[in-house]
Amino acid sequence: MIIQVKTDISDRQKEDIITEVNKVGYKVTEVQTQLGTYLIGIGSANFDIRKFGHKEGIQDIHIVSDDYKLVSKKWKVKPTSIDLGDGIHIKDGDMALMAGPCSIETEEQIIKVIDHLKATGIKIMRGGVYKPRSSPYAFRGLGLEGLKLWHQHAKAAGIKIVTEVMQVSQIEEMYDYVDIYQVGARNTQNFNLLDELGRVDKAVMIKRGISGTIEELLQSAEYVFSGGNEKLILCERGIRTYEKASRNTLDLNAIPILKSKSHLPVVVDPSHGIGIRQFVSHMALAGVMSGADGVIYETHEVPEKAYSDGQQTLDFHQSALLADQIRQTFALRNSFVL
Amino acid sequence: MIIQVKTDISDRQKEDIITEVNKVGYKVTEVQTQLGTYLIGIGSANFDIRKFGHKEGIQDIHIVSDDYKLVSKKWKVKPTSIDLGDGIHIKDGDMALMAGPCSIETEEQIIKVIDHLKATGIKIMRGGVYKPRSSPYAFRGLGLEGLKLWHQHAKAAGIKIVTEVMQVSQIEEMYDYVDIYQVGARNTQNFNLLDELGRVDKAVMIKRGISGTIEELLQSAEYVFSGGNEKLILCERGIRTYEKASRNTLDLNAIPILKSKSHLPVVVDPSHGIGIRQFVSHMALAGVMSGADGVIYETHEVPEKAYSDGQQTLDFHQSALLADQIRQTFALRNSFVL
Amino acid sequence: MIIQVKTDISDRQKEDIITEVNKVGYKVTEVQTQLGTYLIGIGSANFDIRKFGHKEGIQDIHIVSDDYKLVSKKWKVKPTSIDLGDGIHIKDGDMALMAGPCSIETEEQIIKVIDHLKATGIKIMRGGVYKPRSSPYAFRGLGLEGLKLWHQHAKAAGIKIVTEVMQVSQIEEMYDYVDIYQVGARNTQNFNLLDELGRVDKAVMIKRGISGTIEELLQSAEYVFSGGNEKLILCERGIRTYEKASRNTLDLNAIPILKSKSHLPVVVDPSHGIGIRQFVSHMALAGVMSGADGVIYETHEVPEKAYSDGQQTLDFHQSALLADQIRQTFALRNSFVL
Amino acid sequence: MIIQVKTDISDRQKEDIITEVNKVGYKVTEVQTQLGTYLIGIGSANFDIRKFGHKEGIQDIHIVSDDYKLVSKKWKVKPTSIDLGDGIHIKDGDMALMAGPCSIETEEQIIKVIDHLKATGIKIMRGGVYKPRSSPYAFRGLGLEGLKLWHQHAKAAGIKIVTEVMQVSQIEEMYDYVDIYQVGARNTQNFNLLDELGRVDKAVMIKRGISGTIEELLQSAEYVFSGGNEKLILCERGIRTYEKASRNTLDLNAIPILKSKSHLPVVVDPSHGIGIRQFVSHMALAGVMSGADGVIYETHEVPEKAYSDGQQTLDFHQSALLADQIRQTFALRNSFVL
Repeated sequence: MIIQVKTDISDRQKEDIITEVNKVGYKVTEVQTQLGTYLIGIGSANFDIRKFGHKEGIQDIHIVSDDYKLVSKKWKVKPTSIDLGDGIHIKDGDMALMAGPCSIETEEQIIKVIDHLKATGIKIMRGGVYKPRSSPYAFRGLGLEGLKLWHQHAKAAGIKIVTEVMQVSQIEEMYDYVDIYQVGARNTQNFNLLDELGRVDKAVMIKRGISGTIEELLQSAEYVFSGGNEKLILCERGIRTYEKASRNTLDLNAIPILKSKSHLPVVVDPSHGIGIRQFVSHMALAGVMSGADGVIYETHEVPEKAYSDGQQTLDFHQSALLADQIRQTFALRNSFVL
Repeated sequence: MIIQVKTDISDRQKEDIITEVNKVGYKVTEVQTQLGTYLIGIGSANFDIRKFGHKEGIQDIHIVSDDYKLVSKKWKVKPTSIDLGDGIHIKDGDMALMAGPCSIETEEQIIKVIDHLKATGIKIMRGGVYKPRSSPYAFRGLGLEGLKLWHQHAKAAGIKIVTEVMQVSQIEEMYDYVDIYQVGARNTQNFNLLDELGRVDKAVMIKRGISGTIEELLQSAEYVFSGGNEKLILCERGIRTYEKASRNTLDLNAIPILKSKSHLPVVVDPSHGIGIRQFVSHMALAGVMSGADGVIYETHEVPEKAYSDGQQTLDFHQSALLADQIRQTFALRNSFVL
Repeated sequence: MIIQVKTDISDRQKEDIITEVNKVGYKVTEVQTQLGTYLIGIGSANFDIRKFGHKEGIQDIHIVSDDYKLVSKKWKVKPTSIDLGDGIHIKDGDMALMAGPCSIETEEQIIKVIDHLKATGIKIMRGGVYKPRSSPYAFRGLGLEGLKLWHQHAKAAGIKIVTEVMQVSQIEEMYDYVDIYQVGARNTQNFNLLDELGRVDKAVMIKRGISGTIEELLQSAEYVFSGGNEKLILCERGIRTYEKASRNTLDLNAIPILKSKSHLPVVVDPSHGIGIRQFVSHMALAGVMSGADGVIYETHEVPEKAYSDGQQTLDFHQSALLADQIRQTFALRNSFVL
Repeated sequence: MIIQVKTDISDRQKEDIITEVNKVGYKVTEVQTQLGTYLIGIGSANFDIRKFGHKEGIQDIHIVSDDYKLVSKKWKVKPTSIDLGDGIHIKDGDMALMAGPCSIETEEQIIKVIDHLKATGIKIMRGGVYKPRSSPYAFRGLGLEGLKLWHQHAKAAGIKIVTEVMQVSQIEEMYDYVDIYQVGARNTQNFNLLDELGRVDKAVMIKRGISGTIEELLQSAEYVFSGGNEKLILCERGIRTYEKASRNTLDLNAIPILKSKSHLPVVVDPSHGIGIRQFVSHMALAGVMSGADGVIYETHEVPEKAYSDGQQTLDFHQSALLADQIRQTFALRNSFVL
């Protein structure tokens, strides 16, 4: 159960509600976000909502049977829009493009990518400065210094930054330089990280776990929301299956399912989803048709020379072509009754 | 290695070639199809093609390192077109629509579906008369009598029939009444069935196995082709993974990969691929964008009353809408450089 | 619901029971096996068993809610024992060893394996004469002639034969020469084959499908049982997962689960289960400890020269060692309360 | 390549070696652990070892082609023994038992479990104080206070503690109270956590990721080792597959494979591996037979009342029985040539 309370509720009124909810055998967690205060009741007994539905201070009560509550569409039918400032949004009914290299490598590279994005009308740049690598001996990214350099150029160009945060201690140090914190596929169930991101007033994009279920992705988003941060984006990036002809198995089924279960925007990552440059555009467009609100993909001036993920990275020519095709595909999908 | 031989090759010339190929350590299998004769050399040694490349009777020689040979794009770059007669084709550059119920149930149902297909401009009707069911106590279909009834109405309406064949003994009895034999996901590696379908001069559509790899699907097609039948269609219908929010995980990655590896047309089945009526259209359109040459989906006048698969079956209104959306999506994709 | 009827039931009495069961909304399938006659009622309504429980001709009635019925332990608590003749059984409380090459290759090979089995006290020989191969160009086995030759030597030595049957037409031709028909992992859901094996009075061992669930394996066994054949053995042989360090993922969890759900004996195949010679013994012994009633493994005089599966085949020395270790392990397990 | 250097090597000698290794195109990472100093060379070119093999300060050079190096058996054939003090070891050739509740709940519970362990001769107690939970509203453990309480009783009883660490900041605060840090299945690729655990002089047990490969588990161990900590234990606890009849699919294949690839001890967790109380003992014993050096399982005085995982937890009677069966099984396995 989710109880939305009024902004001017008194402590006394709140305690009063909690006491009544406890009486029907429900534990209550209080959640304060940027947008409101919620009392989340967790329990399994049936109860008569009239017992506390009339209490002062209550704005609305919703019965949400899903294990995730606050990210569910059952209480909040209106889609969530993520406002990145400067008129840039990620939301249902719009198409957010995010592109950039796997890793931030050099200042020259940053400048070239930003020039490409500006020429293509792409407003959000992706790139890794902290790189999760399965081998401890691999390149692990430029770190905070790289991020600062990147931020300086991006800010000047009016480009927003989405980049991966790998641990709690990085959240604060990255704060001034990112627009969207990305939670990577290996950290989808790093609950401490999610908890802390709940305390930040900045957008968070959560990638589905390497073998995460749709349910688990929503639960992970619930962590951040219940920690106090409503600015959430979900991302399908492929799952691990027995099939090895592609890097991952892009599960586009997840996109309409997530959109129907949650009010959060959903983005698709075709680069990791298939892992083969030649087919990234096919999967990006398929993702758009399946209902995605955005596409995040990898691009680099010379993919063959990229420090990582070159095999799935588009060059600028391919990227420009794709951005245009995505827009046309999105326009067509928007004209459909689905 | 694939050696295409001339149509007027003499037995003597053929033996001569085989002898030489054997000398370099390759075993030779002779394949005769509707369109030509091929000598397939299987071996792993390196050899000098000049040793037999000049032999009389040879039209062309191709080195194909894949385990599948005849279905590979490496020797036959031009896409295969399946001609069903009456101007109906399944082929690259075209969009084949196949729709109909999960099971053929009654004459009345047949008539209603055919009327719907005609009104929608769909030329190929799907439906099961032999139904593979995991429980021996479930409805197993109307069998041959159902097929005959169906064929009578379909023929009159100029509609082609695709339906599943489950065992060798059915091939002959179904022959006069089907246009495309479908090999179901549980029979993708029923090698005896594939062998026998190689001896038939009628189109065969092979569905990917429930947990089949892309490679295995191509090998299964190789069985039919090497048995003598080039009229082959591949179908992606979702694979089994840990994710249970959908019936299967539709692996759209497979579509551009199959199209790049093989010259055969590739069809997508969104109904089984997601298994949820509400999202079948999303996945159908995503499949088209990923590169499919056709879409096969389930439709029924009253899905709730269907004998089987009702939960993933579109009603006629939804079906008509989808057919139109598929055509628009396909037209847009065709305008793209991908 | 399973209604066991008396052996001397009259047709009139049977019809009478069926009529009453139909009245509560249940469809009835009559099953006649080697051991008895059963009326299987399929439906979902609640009913009062007193409505027909007293009817003449009824021996016993069991409510079985599983989708599989006749293979369930819910009505038949006593484990099924498969009698192969000559005092050889496969059953709970005993340890059946089955060993032999992947493929039957030559008469010399047959003789050598049989000599090894006799020396080791192994009573059942495995081997393939019809080989399912993913490539149409690979060795497909010696066929019926190979089986006859094998049978001649095996019979003389008092050794029983288990070998794979791939299609309906082979059942009859193999009948005189096999003791156990094996249904391979690619045919677990070849329902026509299962139907026909239900009509045979000879033991059938069903391997779990390549990505088959435990439930599906039991349903496949239900096909054969409901077709009339109670002589069934289940076999765990590894499933397909994302892990590629082993050929398959041997799912030993399945063994105690199958034993608790069904009265049928369960055998483990460590050779296919891990696919690496060096570790076959580890997994065989683990399988015994998990509760298997038998072990089937591959052995060959010179594994490196085997026509197929050499990499997972034990030589005779390893095989003799393993047979002894299995017996000791089984004796220890038998002394445990589990 | 791994270069073991002498303890008395001078900085000059070290630089000299690194310079030469760089010359053949290899990057060098220096690793200092409790036991030695290693120079890890990463590269792919072939080179002539004589170019630097004679350099002063070098004790030994090993070519290790695996992606993981320091945890590989290729350079260190002798199994690693983890010394927990007081004569308690985890090592090849021995059987380490670790048992306890899923969550530490109360002081009374701690005392009861410790009494049970002492009576059963089990020296290591498991239990969670920081619990990773997919829902933010679930019980998350008693935290540091719970750990201190537990440690007080365990120390008095001579029992060692293994418990999960979830984030970097907990490492230091837990240090005085744990004997083995456990890295949970959701943190196997939390590389920051692994890095930090490399800086600690205390044993670390890494659980295989929920859908982690064997290779990835070894790479994660490489993180800790290359960070400076050689005291490592690997744990197989089941992987995620399509099969839902058990909580996870316990991959016992992984045990002999891990033992053959790495010198580290390997432990099996049958409780999470199957997730069904009734079959935990079967899988524990199977794990022992497959080659495990230890077993970690869940026990609680009244499993039905456990705060978490009750369905897979043994009561004390079952636990005592299992401990005895494990010892007998291990003794038998030790008598085998495998």
